Amino acid sequence: MQSSTVTKSSGAASAGSADRVEQLLARVPRAVRWVGGADGTLELLDQVALPGEVRYVRCGDVPTIIEAIRMLRVRGAPAIGVAAGFGFCVGVRGAADADAALFRSTAERVAAELIAARPTAVNLAWAVRRVMRAALSETAPPAAAALALREAMEIAAEDEAVCRQIGELGASLIPEGGGVLTHCNAGSLATAAYGTALAPMYVAHAGGRRFRVFADETRPLLQGARLTAFELSAAGIEVSVLCDNAAASVMASGAVQMVIVGADRIAANGDTANKIGTLGVAILARHHGIPFYVAAPRSTFDPACPNGAGIPIEQRSESEVGAMFGHALVPPGVRCVNPAFDVTPAGLISGILTEVGLIKPVTEAGIRGILG
Amino acid sequence: MQSSTVTKSSGAASAGSADRVEQLLARVPRAVRWVGGADGTLELLDQVALPGEVRYVRCGDVPTIIEAIRMLRVRGAPAIGVAAGFGFCVGVRGAADADAALFRSTAERVAAELIAARPTAVNLAWAVRRVMRAALSETAPPAAAALALREAMEIAAEDEAVCRQIGELGASLIPEGGGVLTHCNAGSLATAAYGTALAPMYVAHAGGRRFRVFADETRPLLQGARLTAFELSAAGIEVSVLCDNAAASVMASGAVQMVIVGADRIAANGDTANKIGTLGVAILARHHGIPFYVAAPRSTFDPACPNGAGIPIEQRSESEVGAMFGHALVPPGVRCVNPAFDVTPAGLISGILTEVGLIKPVTEAGIRGILG
Repeated sequence: MQSSTVTKSSGAASAGSADRVEQLLARVPRAVRWVGGADGTLELLDQVALPGEVRYVRCGDVPTIIEAIRMLRVRGAPAIGVAAGFGFCVGVRGAADADAALFRSTAERVAAELIAARPTAVNLAWAVRRVMRAALSETAPPAAAALALREAMEIAAEDEAVCRQIGELGASLIPEGGGVLTHCNAGSLATAAYGTALAPMYVAHAGGRRFRVFADETRPLLQGARLTAFELSAAGIEVSVLCDNAAASVMASGAVQMVIVGADRIAANGDTANKIGTLGVAILARHHGIPFYVAAPRSTFDPACPNGAGIPIEQRSESEVGAMFGHALVPPGVRCVNPAFDVTPAGLISGILTEVGLIKPVTEAGIRGILG
Repeated sequence: MQSSTVTKSSGAASAGSADRVEQLLARVPRAVRWVGGADGTLELLDQVALPGEVRYVRCGDVPTIIEAIRMLRVRGAPAIGVAAGFGFCVGVRGAADADAALFRSTAERVAAELIAARPTAVNLAWAVRRVMRAALSETAPPAAAALALREAMEIAAEDEAVCRQIGELGASLIPEGGGVLTHCNAGSLATAAYGTALAPMYVAHAGGRRFRVFADETRPLLQGARLTAFELSAAGIEVSVLCDNAAASVMASGAVQMVIVGADRIAANGDTANKIGTLGVAILARHHGIPFYVAAPRSTFDPACPNGAGIPIEQRSESEVGAMFGHALVPPGVRCVNPAFDVTPAGLISGILTEVGLIKPVTEAGIRGILG
């Protein structure tokens, strides 16, 4: 079967559950918020401080935004896109009173700086270019700046709607009475709201479905332990944290009926870059006969990238692996390997859940069909 | 092929290299040492303090030894066995001047307490029972206590010789110019000396073979990052640490030609309990077509246990996963899953390396042949 299958959500998202889903999510702080109007402020939830502290970083300039992206204060491909869209607005605001040429050169410089902050997720460049394109459709700088902000807000609103739709479409996949394993954080904290991999859990939970989530802790930065456990437990969903290396044992015990993860970039053939460790989870799921789903908005697809070999993989600092809370975990002089992402071949993915349907099986034609 | 194959070591362990191997190992502190004669002291290297600090715990009584075993100050199935053998001697020493009945009841109580310290590794009970049996072959308490110490020293000397032999037999498996991945620590620090999984690396390195070791950090207690990296780098072997979840990515990159791990208990059919995460590594190795070896002395086999389902798996404290250096890694109220071991089915194991030969393929008959 080469065509894509659109699964409409079932009872789990029945009438009236919309409010219940929103109520659940109201307990989870937003990753990105724009406070005020045209002269407003971009605030990013400092996810490095979670779960201990809920605090926001006020981002008054581009270096602060880039630092927040690089240090993973804001992370998750969609949330990075939303933040970078607003970040562009912050960066060009100072040139709104300049002449058109200076505004344009400022816009191009800010866009290039933001896009260079992290290499793997496609949403970052996608969002920045979209906001810049909207701005530069107007030559008068004040109007261009206003258009930029409107577009950034539109991206945030779209992301929220798209994630909600992923949740509605995916809720029926969540096994009643079963266990769902996820890796890293592809939740509300990784998006404008709802999340990608976690969105079906919120909708299913709001609809009364009972299930248990296993959250891989996700070394080195522990986004599963710190963030996925934080938002799911805040919403009242039962979640247990496990070390990444315990996933095989938990699967072998029969406690996991489904795996669902997010994505940072999906190539034209369905090969998927996501947080380091995702490939291993996919191989373990295949070994145990457990379906392995990827959830991602269409903006995560990169049709220009034919397959996973073309996705650049960010290598991050060795110190993220070799030390924690100021304590050395490895002896002096020992090297650490720290790729931030890995690539899961399409053949290991049971289906890719998007806002317009479930691509199953994962084929190039199926992906083209969904992307339209 | 149902029979076992004994692989004799090749050039890597040629004449003269014995001294070089000992020289390498002299740079690595011993996990267990008995200082002095009959009135001597048991000292355990406090592996919780590694790699930051090399310090020994003086064990003057059984509770101190049990605490050291439970808290993993001494760990690794063979080292626990060696330590518990000496621990029995420490425990019965006070009764050496008592009557024979009191000595015997003391011996039985001490043995039971030591055996209950950790449930999974078979060496602990094996060593304690062996030392007790030797002691109780003599009814006069002073002579019995002396026999116990002689037997405990014999266990330590045997373990060292056995591990050296595992190294000699396994050195030829180490791929020249290749990468070897290991999980947890099955090295000198886990045994009397040399190690099991790491012994072939020491012998191969001493023989001039060039290779690179990838050490899984091994959450939650990071024995790979803290201990394997410590002893390999001390001996001058190139080692890189990776988060457990990066093993799939490193294998997919082609950098790993062989996996070798230790074992805590091997059932009659070859199913192998080892540190949590070993099962996952075995599945990933199979997926990538990489040979996966287990190295263990014959004392690690439990012929009374027909298969992996019969091996008790220790569940350890949730706080080992949920906190580090006093910092919470998970939100309050969130549960953590923390099995200390998992079971790798025999079918995923390319071969089991013992002190008398390589069992390959891993079959019940092959194991019986090796155990004699």
